[in-house]
Amino acid sequence: MSDRAYAFFEEQQKARGINIDEVKARLKALKIETPSWGYGDSGTRFKVFQKEGVPRNPFEKFDDAAQVHKLTGIAPSVAIHIPWDKVDDYGKLKIHAESLGLSIGAVNPNLFQDEDYMLGSVTNSDAAIRRKATNHLLECVDIAKETGSKEFSLWFADGTNYPGQGHIRKRKAWMQEALAEMYGALSPDMRLLIEYKCFEPAFYHTDLADWGMAYNLAQKLGPQAEVLVDTGHHLPGANIEHIVAYLLDEKRLGGFHFNSRKYADDDLIVGTVNPYELFLIFYQIVSAAGDSDAGVRQNAESITYMIDQSHNIEQKIPAMLRSVLNVQTQLAKALLINHDEVNEAAERHDVLGAEDAVRRAFEFDVTPLLHAIREEQGLPHDPMKAYLSSSYGKDILARGKGGASW
Amino acid sequence: MSDRAYAFFEEQQKARGINIDEVKARLKALKIETPSWGYGDSGTRFKVFQKEGVPRNPFEKFDDAAQVHKLTGIAPSVAIHIPWDKVDDYGKLKIHAESLGLSIGAVNPNLFQDEDYMLGSVTNSDAAIRRKATNHLLECVDIAKETGSKEFSLWFADGTNYPGQGHIRKRKAWMQEALAEMYGALSPDMRLLIEYKCFEPAFYHTDLADWGMAYNLAQKLGPQAEVLVDTGHHLPGANIEHIVAYLLDEKRLGGFHFNSRKYADDDLIVGTVNPYELFLIFYQIVSAAGDSDAGVRQNAESITYMIDQSHNIEQKIPAMLRSVLNVQTQLAKALLINHDEVNEAAERHDVLGAEDAVRRAFEFDVTPLLHAIREEQGLPHDPMKAYLSSSYGKDILARGKGGASW
Amino acid sequence: MSDRAYAFFEEQQKARGINIDEVKARLKALKIETPSWGYGDSGTRFKVFQKEGVPRNPFEKFDDAAQVHKLTGIAPSVAIHIPWDKVDDYGKLKIHAESLGLSIGAVNPNLFQDEDYMLGSVTNSDAAIRRKATNHLLECVDIAKETGSKEFSLWFADGTNYPGQGHIRKRKAWMQEALAEMYGALSPDMRLLIEYKCFEPAFYHTDLADWGMAYNLAQKLGPQAEVLVDTGHHLPGANIEHIVAYLLDEKRLGGFHFNSRKYADDDLIVGTVNPYELFLIFYQIVSAAGDSDAGVRQNAESITYMIDQSHNIEQKIPAMLRSVLNVQTQLAKALLINHDEVNEAAERHDVLGAEDAVRRAFEFDVTPLLHAIREEQGLPHDPMKAYLSSSYGKDILARGKGGASW
Amino acid sequence: MSDRAYAFFEEQQKARGINIDEVKARLKALKIETPSWGYGDSGTRFKVFQKEGVPRNPFEKFDDAAQVHKLTGIAPSVAIHIPWDKVDDYGKLKIHAESLGLSIGAVNPNLFQDEDYMLGSVTNSDAAIRRKATNHLLECVDIAKETGSKEFSLWFADGTNYPGQGHIRKRKAWMQEALAEMYGALSPDMRLLIEYKCFEPAFYHTDLADWGMAYNLAQKLGPQAEVLVDTGHHLPGANIEHIVAYLLDEKRLGGFHFNSRKYADDDLIVGTVNPYELFLIFYQIVSAAGDSDAGVRQNAESITYMIDQSHNIEQKIPAMLRSVLNVQTQLAKALLINHDEVNEAAERHDVLGAEDAVRRAFEFDVTPLLHAIREEQGLPHDPMKAYLSSSYGKDILARGKGGASW
Repeated sequence: MSDRAYAFFEEQQKARGINIDEVKARLKALKIETPSWGYGDSGTRFKVFQKEGVPRNPFEKFDDAAQVHKLTGIAPSVAIHIPWDKVDDYGKLKIHAESLGLSIGAVNPNLFQDEDYMLGSVTNSDAAIRRKATNHLLECVDIAKETGSKEFSLWFADGTNYPGQGHIRKRKAWMQEALAEMYGALSPDMRLLIEYKCFEPAFYHTDLADWGMAYNLAQKLGPQAEVLVDTGHHLPGANIEHIVAYLLDEKRLGGFHFNSRKYADDDLIVGTVNPYELFLIFYQIVSAAGDSDAGVRQNAESITYMIDQSHNIEQKIPAMLRSVLNVQTQLAKALLINHDEVNEAAERHDVLGAEDAVRRAFEFDVTPLLHAIREEQGLPHDPMKAYLSSSYGKDILARGKGGASW
Repeated sequence: MSDRAYAFFEEQQKARGINIDEVKARLKALKIETPSWGYGDSGTRFKVFQKEGVPRNPFEKFDDAAQVHKLTGIAPSVAIHIPWDKVDDYGKLKIHAESLGLSIGAVNPNLFQDEDYMLGSVTNSDAAIRRKATNHLLECVDIAKETGSKEFSLWFADGTNYPGQGHIRKRKAWMQEALAEMYGALSPDMRLLIEYKCFEPAFYHTDLADWGMAYNLAQKLGPQAEVLVDTGHHLPGANIEHIVAYLLDEKRLGGFHFNSRKYADDDLIVGTVNPYELFLIFYQIVSAAGDSDAGVRQNAESITYMIDQSHNIEQKIPAMLRSVLNVQTQLAKALLINHDEVNEAAERHDVLGAEDAVRRAFEFDVTPLLHAIREEQGLPHDPMKAYLSSSYGKDILARGKGGASW
Repeated sequence: MSDRAYAFFEEQQKARGINIDEVKARLKALKIETPSWGYGDSGTRFKVFQKEGVPRNPFEKFDDAAQVHKLTGIAPSVAIHIPWDKVDDYGKLKIHAESLGLSIGAVNPNLFQDEDYMLGSVTNSDAAIRRKATNHLLECVDIAKETGSKEFSLWFADGTNYPGQGHIRKRKAWMQEALAEMYGALSPDMRLLIEYKCFEPAFYHTDLADWGMAYNLAQKLGPQAEVLVDTGHHLPGANIEHIVAYLLDEKRLGGFHFNSRKYADDDLIVGTVNPYELFLIFYQIVSAAGDSDAGVRQNAESITYMIDQSHNIEQKIPAMLRSVLNVQTQLAKALLINHDEVNEAAERHDVLGAEDAVRRAFEFDVTPLLHAIREEQGLPHDPMKAYLSSSYGKDILARGKGGASW
Repeated sequence: MSDRAYAFFEEQQKARGINIDEVKARLKALKIETPSWGYGDSGTRFKVFQKEGVPRNPFEKFDDAAQVHKLTGIAPSVAIHIPWDKVDDYGKLKIHAESLGLSIGAVNPNLFQDEDYMLGSVTNSDAAIRRKATNHLLECVDIAKETGSKEFSLWFADGTNYPGQGHIRKRKAWMQEALAEMYGALSPDMRLLIEYKCFEPAFYHTDLADWGMAYNLAQKLGPQAEVLVDTGHHLPGANIEHIVAYLLDEKRLGGFHFNSRKYADDDLIVGTVNPYELFLIFYQIVSAAGDSDAGVRQNAESITYMIDQSHNIEQKIPAMLRSVLNVQTQLAKALLINHDEVNEAAERHDVLGAEDAVRRAFEFDVTPLLHAIREEQGLPHDPMKAYLSSSYGKDILARGKGGASW
């Protein structure tokens, strides 16, 4: 049935003027980084439920991540979190990763779990704490040099819960100061990806609250600093794809942390709350990838796609598979947009025609296409099914409970 | 200065037609229940910062709560959480409370921290888990009989994170079934206070998501069931005072969990984000307390006011003092509303006049009034200052870190 | 290509255990009421852009609505708004509708455009204005008797902009009083559909602010009163499908006003912002239609589906076609859910499996199915294309500008 | 009573270390610009209620505005909107304003009410429409030269309702192009104040959606371009005072459009929904006015404060008085913050102490202070009462209904 399905799909898309070979090539080029902490226990402030079989150390996290890559072919790197993934010998971790066909991706400093950071890390009014925090950033640069990582995902929990608690403008200066020091330590091929978040764990003000603050800071730091968009870090109603298009136009979109939100930073599996929004994000990216400005095109091609979620109740590896597959699905749909059709409708002020030309691509079932490219790459048609019918999930139960949590 | 200030205040208010003796009497009648868990460590999903001096057991929580009551005179009862406050002998806890001038207030069952409850407690699709959860509710009724508690604050974390994960309508029936069983075990003078919450820790649907679901359930259960309004459990923009007025009109407002929200269920100190909203809630309550319908008046007089917050970064006892004082302040302001003036303006369609008559009461500085009633009650003018200059806060440091957390 | 596509689709769905004949039967049974005012000019507070060809009177609105029904086969009735659709002889309007294959659907009273209603209609503190408003409701009952309408969509703009402006609890009583009088005038086969809205045009409190207030009122009025869910009338994050499931379980879901919101009551074309949400609403309805409780099943079958949008910039008839088609599409997808699969996964606590079983149905492209049923009904495969290639849109340009607006 | 009240107030504040003379001087220096359109009829998309006595032309709008200034002493300029305030001879309007003790303030181009602008003005895909829109901007520069205005409030309704309708990045370029042309036409002492808005009337994307887009554009244009913060133009939860502090730190805060929001851009009277937020905004401004950086200080001193509201149901002149008074009240309170106390508490990590030091200033009743400065300036103690007891409101009724609306 699958072959017929694909043949029919191809015929249908070619009739629409879609270059199916290009679509396939771009789908095959997609790379989604999974986070080491996504394989461990996580939860809400009310409870972290403990799962059996959760990895007990960074090496086992890579083992699990390797399953996701083996079955999907598009998850070749793993982000690490320091100190959660602290090891004595990063060279060893790197070799372990490579032995599994993986590389070590973005390094994520952790500046929110030390008692000292209760009122801020790099924006703390205590200079000694700021120093400690900045040193941790520098330490992460050193680790990256050992692991071969080229990127840093910088999320700061820094902010305040009450008016007066902190001096907003001074904190702004301290943030810049710390990051400038870190920036100075980068190798020329490294990138800082600056993340923003509207709230949580700070509930009055967050030092880097929105894309504008992250972008402005990136500009001040220099060309190796870019903005990281976490899809869950926006206020209700925010048009994320607009922000994405804006940053691409400014050539400052560094990457994504994918997840889904319905209410706050819910950190659900990407693509489960409003899959159309994910599709519309990719629509902007695909549009930019075909721009006349080489810089915009280059930015669109160099985005780092990362998963960053909290699998509170789901099985960890299947949750990650589902996430990676959902991202792939929406990119596949976005690649079926006929941009000429959209733009021509827009230019003749045909609002409904333009909307339809976008939405129609979303309506296609891309399953046959995904089966086809997986087949071409020697991957199982249905990675989730393949995983569930493998013994891996059962084998790791031997690890017991009480593994790593974030 | 304080005496002159009060004399001036009294003169000013009498000139406005305010019955200052009645205002004082009502302020003295205010009772605010503090939660045992508010004295322990709490935090966000990212980190629970540990404070020195946090109580190590339920008895010490009452010791701390006694400080709040001793200094403010309006916090005579303490809500307990089972199993956080589980003790071998509740009679002993009751005697301890009484020896401190306190009583044991609402009993709060905990149905969200057992591994079994990951996918629901009373609404779990597994009948054995529902049975276990219902048994816990019944156990709490038994405990209340031992402690002399008359109320239960029922908050359920039950809900789902993804479509399909649970059968929404079946879960609704299971919720009703469990509560009906608990209701049947109540003494005639006991009340169920049913809490609702729009989201967290469930991020797709929460079984009791809003006041309408809590109210409808309360109606089905019977007259001993009422609605508990947690000020933080609403979607952005919700007009909480409207809900309060509505429930009072239906004679089903059981009580409050006070706290502040700016973004989500931030659980900040009540009155720190939008004090005017707290004032407007009290405006509706004071209005209902003067209603022509005896049932509405009775409901307004029998509301249980409780604090329910998360003092993530604040010192615990001062945070509770601040909370209790903020509630008292806004009630004091609401008692200065001249309702005749408001209503007459409203009836002559004078929008600005009516608005002004409400807001003007908020503008008064009620500090002299609060000083006066405290003086009349033998309490310190400034309970916070009195606490900070006492040795209590230093003495409890001997408890060390690692005390109770919720 | 279309026949092959359908053959393939049918084969695929049968393999999944879907009863394709039943799916088709249910799709053919779908009826979506379009609103007369949706064919006229509308806008925002900033500007109502005037379109050429807009109908100049109620008769022309029915002409336009007939196009939508002729091409889709599922829009056989038209809601009217009084006084916008006031005519001297409703019998004549009825005959006109019938001659076009249409019937007159819900009657919508208008209680927000008379100068008297500035501070409220049925909840105005002025008894004479309340009388006038109630009389309008009674007039609408009379009109319905003439037009053969069986339903009333009751939306009230009533509310306040400032605290104090109105007495919330008195207004609640006045609302009930007016509706009770209207209810008393109903024929036994008529239904009141009570709509709620969180805000706009009232910006402090709205008398019927949420489903709970509408539901409680419906219960007090009697069995001929039900709740009308307008998809745009909720606060950010509200889980509408949960409310839908809840009302179905209480057998009080009267109908829908469909439209899309991203920010506020944006009134965009249904299915353009988050099509998955519309699908999830239908998932709950389809689930209820298969319930073991006959009352729940009956409610699910008797829902009135209506469009209520504001086509500010779109061409009116195409916008309505798009709306009707989007609703049909999402119902079609929801009918492909294998409920046994979902429920079995849920019961074995397989969160990801249950979620996948729901989402998978959404992923199918239902175009072949819709083509097939249209063909079976003698309708064009693509109603939009058929409309655009017809001369109707050009012919009506002769009407000029300045037609009806709401 | 008033004199005693002030004497007591002064004593109290001096004891806190507040320099009361400086407070008075700064309050006297406050200038709030009122908008000409705030005196005319306005409404929602559902209805514009018509008031008797509304001004019939720009000259009468200035007459009304003069009342506000005469009674408050702090509203000496009036913003105009082109073409609503188009007159044949702006020199004549200027003379009329001056004769009333007023000046003509910011010029507001209108690019949202021409039929051509339905799909965008300066971002329309049609170059001729962009030209027309840009020409209007240039026309406004010419008008400003005639009226002596030095500022332009630039709000663009430009945006889209549906994905695909417009090319987001091209529109961004067109926006910049048009504003660069306008910028080039400015006199050296003129300023562009660039406003942003998250949504409405565009419901998918708005070309200038947030402060970041406005700020980035201002930076590209040059030093005469700054950001205009409309307090109603933010998503739910946005921390406006943080944005204010941020822009001050970047020396790009041009001005405010004050109003209140509870849900969306409700445009209610400033200070009626959450007066504490307004106070916190002024806290940041007052803090910046005392900064060590001269540029930051200078920015804080040169902010243009404007009212921009929609008085849908209120009497126009009293509504404006209330607005101006509410702004004055919150600035007065903010001036009572003891910044040393706040900052010292913050630096010793005393969260509750710092919060209290801010909130305490808000708790003071500043009525005596405001009476005192008004007395010193020969103004009535209570401008609202003075207005209501004057005959002006009655006299203008002779204008009848049907005056200007926006």
